[in-house]
Amino acid sequence: MHKSISRSFILSFCLLLTPWASADSNQALMTLLKALQANGTISQDVYESIVAVASEKPVTAATVDVKEIVAKEVEMVTRAQPKITMKDKFEVVSADKDFRLRVGGRVQVDAATYMEDLRKHNDGTELRRARLFVQGALWRAWQYKFQYDFAGNGKIADAYIKYTGLKPWQVTVGHFKEPFSLQEKTSSKYITFTERSLPNLFSPGRNIGVMAGRSGKHWSMNAGLFSNSADGKVGTADEAAYSITGRFTYAPILDKQRHLHLGASASYRNSHSDEATRFRSRPESHVTSTHVVDTKSFNADSSVRAVGEVAYTYKRFSLQSEFYYADIDRVGTDPDVNFSGYYVEGSWFLTDDMRPYSGSKGTYGKIKPNAIVGQGGMGAWQLAVRFSSVDLNDHDITGGDAQNFSLGLNWYANNNIRISANYINILDVTGGAGDSDSTEAFQMRAQVEF
Amino acid sequence: MHKSISRSFILSFCLLLTPWASADSNQALMTLLKALQANGTISQDVYESIVAVASEKPVTAATVDVKEIVAKEVEMVTRAQPKITMKDKFEVVSADKDFRLRVGGRVQVDAATYMEDLRKHNDGTELRRARLFVQGALWRAWQYKFQYDFAGNGKIADAYIKYTGLKPWQVTVGHFKEPFSLQEKTSSKYITFTERSLPNLFSPGRNIGVMAGRSGKHWSMNAGLFSNSADGKVGTADEAAYSITGRFTYAPILDKQRHLHLGASASYRNSHSDEATRFRSRPESHVTSTHVVDTKSFNADSSVRAVGEVAYTYKRFSLQSEFYYADIDRVGTDPDVNFSGYYVEGSWFLTDDMRPYSGSKGTYGKIKPNAIVGQGGMGAWQLAVRFSSVDLNDHDITGGDAQNFSLGLNWYANNNIRISANYINILDVTGGAGDSDSTEAFQMRAQVEF
Amino acid sequence: MHKSISRSFILSFCLLLTPWASADSNQALMTLLKALQANGTISQDVYESIVAVASEKPVTAATVDVKEIVAKEVEMVTRAQPKITMKDKFEVVSADKDFRLRVGGRVQVDAATYMEDLRKHNDGTELRRARLFVQGALWRAWQYKFQYDFAGNGKIADAYIKYTGLKPWQVTVGHFKEPFSLQEKTSSKYITFTERSLPNLFSPGRNIGVMAGRSGKHWSMNAGLFSNSADGKVGTADEAAYSITGRFTYAPILDKQRHLHLGASASYRNSHSDEATRFRSRPESHVTSTHVVDTKSFNADSSVRAVGEVAYTYKRFSLQSEFYYADIDRVGTDPDVNFSGYYVEGSWFLTDDMRPYSGSKGTYGKIKPNAIVGQGGMGAWQLAVRFSSVDLNDHDITGGDAQNFSLGLNWYANNNIRISANYINILDVTGGAGDSDSTEAFQMRAQVEF
Repeated sequence: MHKSISRSFILSFCLLLTPWASADSNQALMTLLKALQANGTISQDVYESIVAVASEKPVTAATVDVKEIVAKEVEMVTRAQPKITMKDKFEVVSADKDFRLRVGGRVQVDAATYMEDLRKHNDGTELRRARLFVQGALWRAWQYKFQYDFAGNGKIADAYIKYTGLKPWQVTVGHFKEPFSLQEKTSSKYITFTERSLPNLFSPGRNIGVMAGRSGKHWSMNAGLFSNSADGKVGTADEAAYSITGRFTYAPILDKQRHLHLGASASYRNSHSDEATRFRSRPESHVTSTHVVDTKSFNADSSVRAVGEVAYTYKRFSLQSEFYYADIDRVGTDPDVNFSGYYVEGSWFLTDDMRPYSGSKGTYGKIKPNAIVGQGGMGAWQLAVRFSSVDLNDHDITGGDAQNFSLGLNWYANNNIRISANYINILDVTGGAGDSDSTEAFQMRAQVEF
Repeated sequence: MHKSISRSFILSFCLLLTPWASADSNQALMTLLKALQANGTISQDVYESIVAVASEKPVTAATVDVKEIVAKEVEMVTRAQPKITMKDKFEVVSADKDFRLRVGGRVQVDAATYMEDLRKHNDGTELRRARLFVQGALWRAWQYKFQYDFAGNGKIADAYIKYTGLKPWQVTVGHFKEPFSLQEKTSSKYITFTERSLPNLFSPGRNIGVMAGRSGKHWSMNAGLFSNSADGKVGTADEAAYSITGRFTYAPILDKQRHLHLGASASYRNSHSDEATRFRSRPESHVTSTHVVDTKSFNADSSVRAVGEVAYTYKRFSLQSEFYYADIDRVGTDPDVNFSGYYVEGSWFLTDDMRPYSGSKGTYGKIKPNAIVGQGGMGAWQLAVRFSSVDLNDHDITGGDAQNFSLGLNWYANNNIRISANYINILDVTGGAGDSDSTEAFQMRAQVEF
Repeated sequence: MHKSISRSFILSFCLLLTPWASADSNQALMTLLKALQANGTISQDVYESIVAVASEKPVTAATVDVKEIVAKEVEMVTRAQPKITMKDKFEVVSADKDFRLRVGGRVQVDAATYMEDLRKHNDGTELRRARLFVQGALWRAWQYKFQYDFAGNGKIADAYIKYTGLKPWQVTVGHFKEPFSLQEKTSSKYITFTERSLPNLFSPGRNIGVMAGRSGKHWSMNAGLFSNSADGKVGTADEAAYSITGRFTYAPILDKQRHLHLGASASYRNSHSDEATRFRSRPESHVTSTHVVDTKSFNADSSVRAVGEVAYTYKRFSLQSEFYYADIDRVGTDPDVNFSGYYVEGSWFLTDDMRPYSGSKGTYGKIKPNAIVGQGGMGAWQLAVRFSSVDLNDHDITGGDAQNFSLGLNWYANNNIRISANYINILDVTGGAGDSDSTEAFQMRAQVEF
């Protein structure tokens, strides 16, 4: 009989000692158990076997059960909530990922001083860019972006709709950058110098149009039909001026340590005889309003522009070069003119950082320092040198033939803050209003991206 | 004795087999139970009764308890969190619903080509509207909206405060649309054609003012005092030019399948002799800058404008018409002039969709396709036809008498994306600069609303 | 034996009666227990001892365990989520507080009527300010703000980066207010009257520059180098025009009931001979475009401006005064000129409210009514009176010497909504275009801050 009783005891106690009992009650029962053994109600071996069995049990059995229930419950609730990203950028993404919203922008504050030679360049400061944008995804396959630049007199930057439902194709309609040139397509936040190089005057920039494109990990191709508007004005001609522009990029080498970018862009631009065509550029500093080269406005019927792109990055080191060519078909008996330009730039990180490249976009992206300021690091430090040249002299058009040399130092305090210092030297100008001018400039920029 | 023992066993086991025990321990104990029955410690019937009693117990008793606790806890926490809406629109609402924030906007990209007759209309593209807005509620009873249109030279659309604390009245102060005309009060995102009809030139649009209104499920009434500003300019006169404008709408029929809208708006506009009054309109396409009818500026002392509104919607089909009348009191001996206009438009959905109507606003709203693209549907497809007429000829004023015929095709891919194609035909113009002109136009629009 | 059995029973029952058992099972077992005692299986005393022991147990032991687990789990999850503030303002703060985003703005709608004397002042309405801003913190130590004012032709208000990592110093770079004058540095949302007083024409306002500052609970000091731009234009001179401006504030008294503000600002402004210098001001109402005092543009080489600030607040009562002085060094033989001005304003809350003052900023802040409308209160009601004077007459410059008297009534319905009524009386003007004019004005403003 005693056996069975003890068994019943063992059972009872094992049960009592399971963790569903609160710590206190466990203790209380252990005390009781000891007492029962002490007054001989249960034998020593029974006592031990109870403790043994009890201790065998996974002490947190029930606790685990609860934890699981809680975790599941909580996860379900939070999974249904939109996810908010604050780091680097502000983004809200719906639980089903079908809807996204980004709000962000950039501010670039410049200060420049000019060591003038022949021509006047005003020292001063400038809000180079002050942009806000709202960007998002709707019903998964539809994306949109609206970005306005409040700097100067203000202008719409991006205003487009992108449809990604026709995989692998993407169709974009609205106001956005024509697919042309590596430096042009690389965001002004991420270009190595404060300004793009002189020959970027050949880049058509942003216009209203429709574009189709597709891409792979190593390549991208985009082509579009655009409204060829001078300075954002559209529909000034009886027949709409238009352009057809395409770009293809390929990255034969693309790994963590190195990438090689090859690209080619071309644009046919029908600008009609009644449209004013003009190529001009400031020095590689924007505070001054004086242009180094300037063809002034002239009548053109159409033009073809092309650019060849090559860039190589190996760890801290990066080399980038583009060659531009433009063939302008003028009106009536005016002889056709050809313009061209190129630049070569090299950059090197003093810190252990690297320029990020996107093979599917064919552009350079956001520099995220390995060790940021405030977290034991000193951010990313980058040295850069660039030589650029553009020739706008041909036949009766004397826009000027200019060479420019620039030195740059960039400090990326973190993913969002960048300070730049540029030394710009207009080596020489031949022809045009800036003939023989050789101005030097020193420029600083503070940039925040949010 | 044995009875009591077995009872104690039953009790013990029933207990052990309750679900607070983890699955493992349950199994372990069943094994033990079997063993005890096998070695005769407990009889067969006792064994069975134990199992029976055990199985009677609600197996998930404790689990349920936990679930409830968790659910309550989690709900309490999440109930305290603001609710974020991503679908259709981005909105954040505080837990107590006293505070709301909406960020959104629209982009409309147009392209138009004109088959010209006598007058010049430039083909081209245009960002028709590019708007961002921030809208919200503060302390429940106070609402605000700020909306800017970045298109063109940019202009403030809405900038107002609305107080809803004086139920059933609402008081609005700031810059917003005067309550006048169905097509004017219907958002440009939801009008059937890309542009409102010709006689909308009589609508005063947005001005600074204060308005009181109230509404029911089937009706709305609003009246306000406004600063009668020409082209947004205000305070140009010594005495402020002002206007008193009111609108009443009633929907005698309003159910899921059909609604009948009746409305009337009137506006008295004191514009002072030193204010330039002008009525003009482009064709029902905005890319061209040429106006079909144009009274040119003339001096007016005051004017009365009125519009009668009627619209009927039955399932896929919708018919809408408005008649406008303006009586202008001119200065000194100049004879008073009367202008008028009207339009009739019909639309029909090829898909199983319907124009949504708000009885409390007296306007048409957002079309949400029954079956959207990407979720097995083809969106909503809508055909539309419209005839509109406006007569700006009276006495010495020859603004022109024009008729316009339009055909429209709309594709609503989803609640946020709309593509429209319009064919516009200026049937005839009598008088004014556009006399005898009969231009045709074809226009496309891509629209995103976010 | 019986003893031990009863013990086993007690144990079993105590266990059964622990709260892991659901309420139902507990009841069932009590019934069983009663039955066993009834049929004599257990004695009365055993029965009672069981109940006794059972009732001794903390009934919610296990429940508490679960609650704790849940609370911990839920808290962990929610702690990882960004925190969203809706009340007063919209702000999202990351879990680690390193990243913040604020989206907000203000709309001020004015209406004014003028009782004219000699000069013309147009009655009318105006959107005085219509601002949106995005503001945030990045990586904790970096802050940014971009604010645009869409009113009028639109202009950039704030566009700056602030680094707080050099404790106790803060360095700000970009476009922001120069540190000058209490009324100028106090937000236009929080100034007592709808417009700042006449002598605020000496305040340089916002310019591009770099500023360093630090502060304590009772004091603040800021000094910066700015690009001295006329009307936001920069770099118009060959050499950049610049200014050095600094402000120091100290609050010897600063407690819940009273605060005394003392402050001094000074600015040296190098504006070069080819820069146009001009001081002018409307009456203390902005709807009219007529200026009460106006020096017209004149050539200046440089100028020194200074302001002495004093303000005292005791509960509902507040007194504020500033004295301005400007010494302008003109070009060549033109005699230097001195201008000056001052104002004294007093305000008193009819309700139990107080102007909030920030000792570390040296400015007045947001009025948050003790009892807001809609929550049993009537908001905050404030009466104010102000006398201001400015003298722009010196040597050949006759900008005018004007005195202005203003009465104000403010209603703060809640933390975000404010309605103001101002009576403005130009007491007298001596010299300049406004000589002997004595216009009166009545102005209303509706303001929302979000």
